[in-house]
Amino acid sequence: MKNPLISYFNSYLELNAEEINFLDKNVPIINIEGHHHLLESGETASAFYFVIEGIIRMYYLVDGVEKTTFFYKENDFVSSYESFTKQTPAEHYLQTVEKSKIAVIEDTVVTEIIGKFPRMEMLARIIMERELIVYQDILASFITMNAEQRYVELMKKEPQLWQRIPQYHIATYLGVSPETLSRIKNRIRKKGFS
Amino acid sequence: MKNPLISYFNSYLELNAEEINFLDKNVPIINIEGHHHLLESGETASAFYFVIEGIIRMYYLVDGVEKTTFFYKENDFVSSYESFTKQTPAEHYLQTVEKSKIAVIEDTVVTEIIGKFPRMEMLARIIMERELIVYQDILASFITMNAEQRYVELMKKEPQLWQRIPQYHIATYLGVSPETLSRIKNRIRKKGFS
Repeated sequence: MKNPLISYFNSYLELNAEEINFLDKNVPIINIEGHHHLLESGETASAFYFVIEGIIRMYYLVDGVEKTTFFYKENDFVSSYESFTKQTPAEHYLQTVEKSKIAVIEDTVVTEIIGKFPRMEMLARIIMERELIVYQDILASFITMNAEQRYVELMKKEPQLWQRIPQYHIATYLGVSPETLSRIKNRIRKKGFS
Repeated sequence: MKNPLISYFNSYLELNAEEINFLDKNVPIINIEGHHHLLESGETASAFYFVIEGIIRMYYLVDGVEKTTFFYKENDFVSSYESFTKQTPAEHYLQTVEKSKIAVIEDTVVTEIIGKFPRMEMLARIIMERELIVYQDILASFITMNAEQRYVELMKKEPQLWQRIPQYHIATYLGVSPETLSRIKNRIRKKGFS
């Protein structure tokens, strides 16, 4: 099977044989069960990830309660930027929501890639640009919408994705209790949205 | 006076005479009054900015009410990434909070810089990495803290900055009314934080 990370990169920049060979050798692809932690709070991130299949959830533990900040899905890059770039302990967790297949890009490999193939800098920039757009978007939705509007927006944008995620995770992502989420869903159903 | 954008870049990558000359010629530095819009909702972003002096506020207009999503200060890059990279109309506004001095980096100049000086890709990556850390941080604070905790956090991190920003902007940033912000401040004062 062709390496999906390479296919993804190729859509931006046609990689040559040497680059493909390097990625194939140095970026392992692993299968992980659901509910497995890739990173726990207090650990320092030494790799970032590319999701080939599955979903990874980023969350914080606040007074014993999980608060989800993000779901990463197929073709998303997952990184704890601050911990990864500053080599400081992360404050959040990264956990698979379901059985997942991911490419693991270790920090030493990142340094080597950019040293060996400087034009790969462009890919790093494109990856981050995508991530930034996502973050600007989410932040805006937090500030401009209430939980119900955000729920409607999520369902409109990626209906398939949300069916794969347990309701209690979606609730912590919206910042409401599971009971409130149920009420929101009932209200929306009555309005004929879902 | 030395161009502050060049000094900033130099702290990451020592620029050569040709690069400095190019930036000096193609990146104008402008002075703007407070309350001036650099971008309005519906416009397509054609430039990004580097704040040399002053503060720029990003906000959305929701049912006639301004909701602030971010304040950019000295040494921050300001960009409407989605609008800028996809060339689609922005949904937000960018406005100076006070008299500001900013460097204007037009999209055509970005393309030219990276074409002429490929190693400048590295700077683009660093700039975005910084922005991403900020966004991950803010998003986390929205999900893990209430308005009062966020206010305390803001004051701890950048006390000087917040003194320069009107209270009603801070209130929309925290997602509360100015009256609630007053109550929060009174509570904190009683606790002896400020």
